[in-house]
Amino acid sequence: MNLPVLYLRKGAERRLRSGHLWVYSNEVDTRRTPLTDFEAGAQAELRASNDKPLGTVFVNPHALICGRLISRDPRHGMTPQRLEQRLEAALVLREKLFPKPFYRWVFGDSDGLSGLVIDRFGDTVVVQISTAGMELLKDTIVRAVQRLVHPSAVVLKNDGKMRRVEGLESYVEQAHGPEVSVLQVEENGVRFEVDLAEGQKTGWFYDHRMNRQRLQAYSPGKRVLDVFSYVGGWGIQAASAGASQVTCVDSSSSAMDAVHHNAKLNGLDNVDTLEGDAFDALKALCDEKEKYDIVVLDPPALIPRRRDQKAGEQAYARLNQLALRLLDRDGLLVSASCSMHLSQEKLVDIIRGSGRKIDRFVQLLEQGHQAPDHPTIPGIPETDYIKSCFVRSLTGFF
Amino acid sequence: MNLPVLYLRKGAERRLRSGHLWVYSNEVDTRRTPLTDFEAGAQAELRASNDKPLGTVFVNPHALICGRLISRDPRHGMTPQRLEQRLEAALVLREKLFPKPFYRWVFGDSDGLSGLVIDRFGDTVVVQISTAGMELLKDTIVRAVQRLVHPSAVVLKNDGKMRRVEGLESYVEQAHGPEVSVLQVEENGVRFEVDLAEGQKTGWFYDHRMNRQRLQAYSPGKRVLDVFSYVGGWGIQAASAGASQVTCVDSSSSAMDAVHHNAKLNGLDNVDTLEGDAFDALKALCDEKEKYDIVVLDPPALIPRRRDQKAGEQAYARLNQLALRLLDRDGLLVSASCSMHLSQEKLVDIIRGSGRKIDRFVQLLEQGHQAPDHPTIPGIPETDYIKSCFVRSLTGFF
Repeated sequence: MNLPVLYLRKGAERRLRSGHLWVYSNEVDTRRTPLTDFEAGAQAELRASNDKPLGTVFVNPHALICGRLISRDPRHGMTPQRLEQRLEAALVLREKLFPKPFYRWVFGDSDGLSGLVIDRFGDTVVVQISTAGMELLKDTIVRAVQRLVHPSAVVLKNDGKMRRVEGLESYVEQAHGPEVSVLQVEENGVRFEVDLAEGQKTGWFYDHRMNRQRLQAYSPGKRVLDVFSYVGGWGIQAASAGASQVTCVDSSSSAMDAVHHNAKLNGLDNVDTLEGDAFDALKALCDEKEKYDIVVLDPPALIPRRRDQKAGEQAYARLNQLALRLLDRDGLLVSASCSMHLSQEKLVDIIRGSGRKIDRFVQLLEQGHQAPDHPTIPGIPETDYIKSCFVRSLTGFF
Repeated sequence: MNLPVLYLRKGAERRLRSGHLWVYSNEVDTRRTPLTDFEAGAQAELRASNDKPLGTVFVNPHALICGRLISRDPRHGMTPQRLEQRLEAALVLREKLFPKPFYRWVFGDSDGLSGLVIDRFGDTVVVQISTAGMELLKDTIVRAVQRLVHPSAVVLKNDGKMRRVEGLESYVEQAHGPEVSVLQVEENGVRFEVDLAEGQKTGWFYDHRMNRQRLQAYSPGKRVLDVFSYVGGWGIQAASAGASQVTCVDSSSSAMDAVHHNAKLNGLDNVDTLEGDAFDALKALCDEKEKYDIVVLDPPALIPRRRDQKAGEQAYARLNQLALRLLDRDGLLVSASCSMHLSQEKLVDIIRGSGRKIDRFVQLLEQGHQAPDHPTIPGIPETDYIKSCFVRSLTGFF
């Protein structure tokens, strides 16, 4: 490899040395190596100001995150061989842990493939590219995917909102095989169908799979309320595990249609839906004095950015309090969050405060995280976003 | 109930209001209500300095933690009825989650029963009492246990070191049934026998049961090193799940004998032992260039007190680095801690630092906590002590 060099400012290598893989544009010594000299997606050798090699990076002069580490070895750029090795290393892990090919195969930085996400849905593979560097390797990626798992279809679902930042256009493309419009999903032995065009992100979120599996243990004979249900990931798995009655709440009417469809798909006739804003629906159910044995809260990220911290935490607190109110005397709250900016510790503290406020004795039974097909990298806090708390709430107990 | 009143100093109710259940002796208004007026184990009504009722407490004038909340309702002391209700509420949870009667039935404060721990080992129930208040209720506890689960034997293993602080003598007593010398344990479908006299605490630690269950998924065909193995909890479960070879390391020769015995009990002939100090053993194995697919580190609390923080963290770092060195190119480190003073975040950071130091690409696959038969109470940090990290370590990958 004979790559151009990108120099960092003095001291800017610290975060990388401690484990992170990103370079911010204000960390580059642009006098020495102007970012404008690089094309979007180009590869470069990265050096500290004292000339010590730090590895290789994908460069994007237009993005705030202008460098993404490819390797810590300055001789190793991203070649088709290296890409395939990494896809294979990621595959080995998933194949060991999951009996069937339904999982996130590649989780970006966490699998050493910054800017690339790949999900497997049986014979269909959905690829998401979010950086200029990976976009240039698009064909290589598709070929490697084909060689490694021989899918019947490969879809490039390149319509994520991070692409604009990288100067990439938004598109969905069938890269291989007959057109796929409905994804067949299986998770913890339960089947789902998701409309690819209407689906969020790659269509399905495997990240809570272990937490949903744990929910099954608590479900037999219980009345379950699944709030922010999307297509029914939690609720339908609870029903399959023997819940007596499940109600899914979501503001999307197409998600509600999907819940009914997926319930039928699994032979379930005890799943109903409530279309509407979750906060409003919870308040109305409280007013009606409805009670459930289990309430699942899996809201979208309520703290999308740092500046939303306070308002977001208040929203989580409101939700958790409403959910606790809806629980019967011995009930279970499953309180989840996908906000990177909400720590597990803070979520537990919100639950503590909510329980105290309405005088419930709350026991934290389980704390769940991302499934192992979404590894996190210690040193890259951005890779760690999913958390869930299984909370038993007792009324009149203490 | 007509209980004497114990007054707190101004503002001292804050921690209790936020969810904690303990009163420290320096928080009591001893001018108004001298602690010396109370017998060890007496019950009292607790009030804030402004006369607002806070609930009822067990009092022990000799202990630093001189009050332990019984109820937040000032009318509710600990009666035999209330004790049995709480034992039953604790039982309901465990019976729902575990198919067989092998679990921690009562986990002290977390089950609203400060000073009481009860473990079930099939027909044998082992009770541990650590406070003067519970000691006075000893017979009531034994009777309630008998009524609720009809065990063939009840053992009072009242030899914990917290008893001295409470002014209680140390003893082991067979409260019911024929004498038990060996505990029959079952965890995740694997059998163990533990000598009650030589065993630590109640004889077995169920707290890692979920984490050990997860280890089973990673074990088939793997060479496993179980460090600080005690009687083989992790190692023998890995072997049962199909590990090709397991080595257990512990400094206790009776624990090593138990490992061999327990291996045989499960029909396993691929479990060997290495008696010795874990640090020395790990170093020696490194020097011999031994390699494993999985290394489990489950040390005793290396930060027993706050003042041991720094030395303890360094010890965890040394251990984790040695363990990573012993892993093959694609290996799994299971790094556990039972130190209340080591946060999950800090443990992850120690793993991050260890990985960086010897240039491994580490993926955090799973984060485990206490099993749900050891609930934690948000607001009582002392109830939250177990953590485990499942870390994939890749060499020459990035």
